Amino acid sequence: MQYINREHIDKLEKLYRVNLINSLSGYKSANLIATKSKDEITNVAIFSSVIHLGSNPPLLGFILRPTSVVRNTYDNLMSTKQFTINHVNKHIIKEAHQTSAKYDGNISEFEKTHLTEEYKADFFAPFVKEANIQIGCKLVNNYFIEENQCRMIVGEVEHLFIEDDIQQEDGWLNLEKAETVTINGVDAYAEAKLLDRLSYAKPNKKLTSILNEEK
Amino acid sequence: MQYINREHIDKLEKLYRVNLINSLSGYKSANLIATKSKDEITNVAIFSSVIHLGSNPPLLGFILRPTSVVRNTYDNLMSTKQFTINHVNKHIIKEAHQTSAKYDGNISEFEKTHLTEEYKADFFAPFVKEANIQIGCKLVNNYFIEENQCRMIVGEVEHLFIEDDIQQEDGWLNLEKAETVTINGVDAYAEAKLLDRLSYAKPNKKLTSILNEEK
Repeated sequence: MQYINREHIDKLEKLYRVNLINSLSGYKSANLIATKSKDEITNVAIFSSVIHLGSNPPLLGFILRPTSVVRNTYDNLMSTKQFTINHVNKHIIKEAHQTSAKYDGNISEFEKTHLTEEYKADFFAPFVKEANIQIGCKLVNNYFIEENQCRMIVGEVEHLFIEDDIQQEDGWLNLEKAETVTINGVDAYAEAKLLDRLSYAKPNKKLTSILNEEK
Repeated sequence: MQYINREHIDKLEKLYRVNLINSLSGYKSANLIATKSKDEITNVAIFSSVIHLGSNPPLLGFILRPTSVVRNTYDNLMSTKQFTINHVNKHIIKEAHQTSAKYDGNISEFEKTHLTEEYKADFFAPFVKEANIQIGCKLVNNYFIEENQCRMIVGEVEHLFIEDDIQQEDGWLNLEKAETVTINGVDAYAEAKLLDRLSYAKPNKKLTSILNEEK
């Protein structure tokens, strides 16, 4: 096994360190977060940091980089309190990745990619039409992470749109059927194949597969 | 497309809602977090919420559920300031899942599963021997999330152990080679297959695959 200590990490060339450290969390979620400014300029950007925070109330979080540079997503969030989270699927990885380019603030990434704005459920922020799972969220809080000046944005789920045949009878969404992808590091996209679903774990009880219980 | 609004979500049966809302973030990371108490009782538990917070300094975060119930991981973190993050791979998904059973606080999950404690780099907390990527972290902060009484734990990377042939020349770790798995919802484990690595995105520049640049 290769051993790397902190002193070594701190001396690494910047891009090498970015590639290495971004690989450490394991696989990351791949989502397009879309917002619209009060003067109706839309914004969509890829995020690999969306996480589940809780089911009741239904809460999701994501990390925003330091806001010293102009961050359209942050400004729109604060002024409109609305955003959508849209799963990246294998058919749109290039369009999704392209949203990470630094476009001028007056230009919508929707215009510059083949991603399509979709408006529904009387929601102000656009959904991404190409996504098979679309989530409309209300901003509820944001936490400043003093160690590196990032912010964790917390949103409550208000609207859900799910393509047919993805949800199972017990509520679970089969992300393989949704063709949702996952991110490895900063620039690698992977598709996932289900290995198993396991029963609720209890002390001294053997785990069983619950895959065949699905309908 | 199926539409579910917030009113509907709030009326769902509990387990159905847990399955649904836990699927919304997209694929989650699968890690075993291990700690040791001051009186030398070890603890290891699976977490699907480990995220990348930043590369310089190298920071990772994860979410701890409300601490009203006894949480060994939390107590050990606060008293020792050390933990390890260990990637779950496809060969240990059952052992990893079993760590979520509610064992008595005096019992180590290492004893109750076939996972093995490993001590190295003079680190107090145990690494999980079976993991191909092992990370020793120092606790640096924790943020109380008032919306649902969770905490985001922030750790700095101090030690890294990476199995041979996983790291590429540009620093990136190929998680497919590491056989790292990803989590869909609360109980589904998936393996991932690389689709592509894409070049750094710039306005008006065509993306290219950087996969063939790897050695």
